Amino acid sequence: MARARQERAEITRQAILTGAATAFDVSGFEGTSLSDVVKHAGVTKGALYFHFPSKEALARTLMDEQFQVAEHLAAIEVPGLQTVIDLTHRMADGLRSDVRIRAGIRLVIEFGSFTHPDPTPYDTWIDTCRSCLAPAQERGDIHPSLDVRALSTLLVGAFTGIQVTSYVRTRREDLHQRVTDLWTFLLPTIVPAQRIDRFLPTGTPAAAPPEPTH
Amino acid sequence: MARARQERAEITRQAILTGAATAFDVSGFEGTSLSDVVKHAGVTKGALYFHFPSKEALARTLMDEQFQVAEHLAAIEVPGLQTVIDLTHRMADGLRSDVRIRAGIRLVIEFGSFTHPDPTPYDTWIDTCRSCLAPAQERGDIHPSLDVRALSTLLVGAFTGIQVTSYVRTRREDLHQRVTDLWTFLLPTIVPAQRIDRFLPTGTPAAAPPEPTH
Repeated sequence: MARARQERAEITRQAILTGAATAFDVSGFEGTSLSDVVKHAGVTKGALYFHFPSKEALARTLMDEQFQVAEHLAAIEVPGLQTVIDLTHRMADGLRSDVRIRAGIRLVIEFGSFTHPDPTPYDTWIDTCRSCLAPAQERGDIHPSLDVRALSTLLVGAFTGIQVTSYVRTRREDLHQRVTDLWTFLLPTIVPAQRIDRFLPTGTPAAAPPEPTH
Repeated sequence: MARARQERAEITRQAILTGAATAFDVSGFEGTSLSDVVKHAGVTKGALYFHFPSKEALARTLMDEQFQVAEHLAAIEVPGLQTVIDLTHRMADGLRSDVRIRAGIRLVIEFGSFTHPDPTPYDTWIDTCRSCLAPAQERGDIHPSLDVRALSTLLVGAFTGIQVTSYVRTRREDLHQRVTDLWTFLLPTIVPAQRIDRFLPTGTPAAAPPEPTH
């Protein structure tokens, strides 16, 4: 009985998050009301308040979810430069196919940048990149004199803007090409010439996106 | 008499734009009301409506103003790769010192990206970059095989995100360093090795910002 209740609660919680993501994706943080969330989620206002005390709490949860993409990737591969390349393509796929990732990044940019400037999402992504690039540099895939923290900061900043401009200009249809361009322009500076052929700026085929789990 | 009236009208119009920029810079498009603009501008509601029919019209005017940075630069230099480097540093200076440029880019990102996705600001910046980089490629400052349109698109996308992350993480205190990093990482890919010493990733000293005119 207790387990069935827990499972139902989790299903409701996920429905609320997907409903909130759908609303935030269309209308942003300021433009979304809790009534919109209730409508999109198909739950009662009571159920909503049981799981999330406020619109802020919904936004925070969706912003935090983005890092699951990184956790998944870190578990299946030896961290390295190609891991970071694949991570950017995986994020690009997620932005195209998964409303919760899409809402998460819109909230990070609008709500987390201007309404409540919060460095955590950016700092977390920079640390994730750095934790892959530092071992890559140790094994000689990255020039020894290169500042891996500066590169990680550049990558997170550049990706953030590239996906915004791709959305506005092509509804993200050209996002894979734009991410591939980023790597095509950066790799000759980053990687010693004799090793550059080891890396695929388009991402490895194994980095194809999993089906969304919600 | 007519001239004095025109001059007063222009002073009022500029006061309204600066007041609107101050409000948008703090609260964004959704969070700003016309009453906020009236308060910050120190004008009557009647004066506001005489000059601008709506909040959208104010936002559009401030978003368009950003391109004045480019016009100014194009008039004083032979267009080339260093012009584009200087343009990014000039924008960085503007974002730090001029509330109207700051409001303009916040509006482009929030209002022009999500509320009313409008490619015009991004396309205009891409065209400006390309009009500097194409002659640079003709005179051999850029590798002949390089796709100048792809590079221009990358630059505008990357700059957009770099200034957002710099704002959130350091209130733009590290923006010059972040823009310098962008160029330091890109120049070895863009420029033939024997010419790379001609270009300053930090921007030329002549590109120091003029005092804001309003």
